[in-house]
Amino acid sequence: MATTEPRWLDTEQQRTWRAYMAATQLLSDHVDRQLQRDAGMPHTYYSLLVWLSESPGRRMRMTELAERSKITRSRLSHAVARLEEDGWVRREDCATDRRGQVAVLTEEGFRALEKAAPGHVEAVRGALFDRLTPEQTAVLGEIMRTVAENLAPRGGADLPWRR
Amino acid sequence: MATTEPRWLDTEQQRTWRAYMAATQLLSDHVDRQLQRDAGMPHTYYSLLVWLSESPGRRMRMTELAERSKITRSRLSHAVARLEEDGWVRREDCATDRRGQVAVLTEEGFRALEKAAPGHVEAVRGALFDRLTPEQTAVLGEIMRTVAENLAPRGGADLPWRR
Repeated sequence: MATTEPRWLDTEQQRTWRAYMAATQLLSDHVDRQLQRDAGMPHTYYSLLVWLSESPGRRMRMTELAERSKITRSRLSHAVARLEEDGWVRREDCATDRRGQVAVLTEEGFRALEKAAPGHVEAVRGALFDRLTPEQTAVLGEIMRTVAENLAPRGGADLPWRR
Repeated sequence: MATTEPRWLDTEQQRTWRAYMAATQLLSDHVDRQLQRDAGMPHTYYSLLVWLSESPGRRMRMTELAERSKITRSRLSHAVARLEEDGWVRREDCATDRRGQVAVLTEEGFRALEKAAPGHVEAVRGALFDRLTPEQTAVLGEIMRTVAENLAPRGGADLPWRR
């Protein structure tokens, strides 16, 4: 690669990339602050509760939960330990896999999620969807699916949840 | 807000939001891993070097650098302290403001940036722009500018760099 000229970004790409960096950082900060302030949890924790709440029996294997959330196993362990302290999640050994562990959403965790959801949705709408036309929302979805599918191919070994 | 029905996301918005969360997390991880592996720095540090390199005299007030990077002052202080240890940045007192400090990109820091840039650009292209049509790139830019401008109004007190 050192021998060929780098394919620098053109002006439009450069502008888009800088806007992308600014917007994603500000949006992540915005959503996180709202949840911290109104529900006492960061966005990552909220997302974990959502995944569990939608899973049959409100339970999911830790390995799958890490993959859904796109975070590393060690970050997940840390988060689940904190959620256990709050009484929102408990861990159980997996019935079918001796090495596996399952995270279970408690009734209290479910209620915390129900209570946090309206304010969170309002924050996401106000910062993102209320600002976009339906066409922009559709294009944003296409772009983000393309990017995610390309970066997380089945079997990729360097993905966060496999590290 | 407790008295009115929350404005839940519709199906399309829900799909877009989940794809957004997955893609932004994977892309951030991807770019960060590449820079860590090939240039020994996380993406945040790389961006700081870029901002300094483009500023007259390769120097910028710490407060402005935090605003450009959309990070908190304490996170910036931490990053700049690390970059100083590497010899890539040095801090100077501001000539016109006794309380202010200026970050200056060193010659060594500039060379580190020049060396890191081609691999970084290749990672961003491969993960994002090579996957998008020019129309998608343009729409993504519009969306991200709309989001960033809405979340970072002039004078907003709760923005990261004002905390």
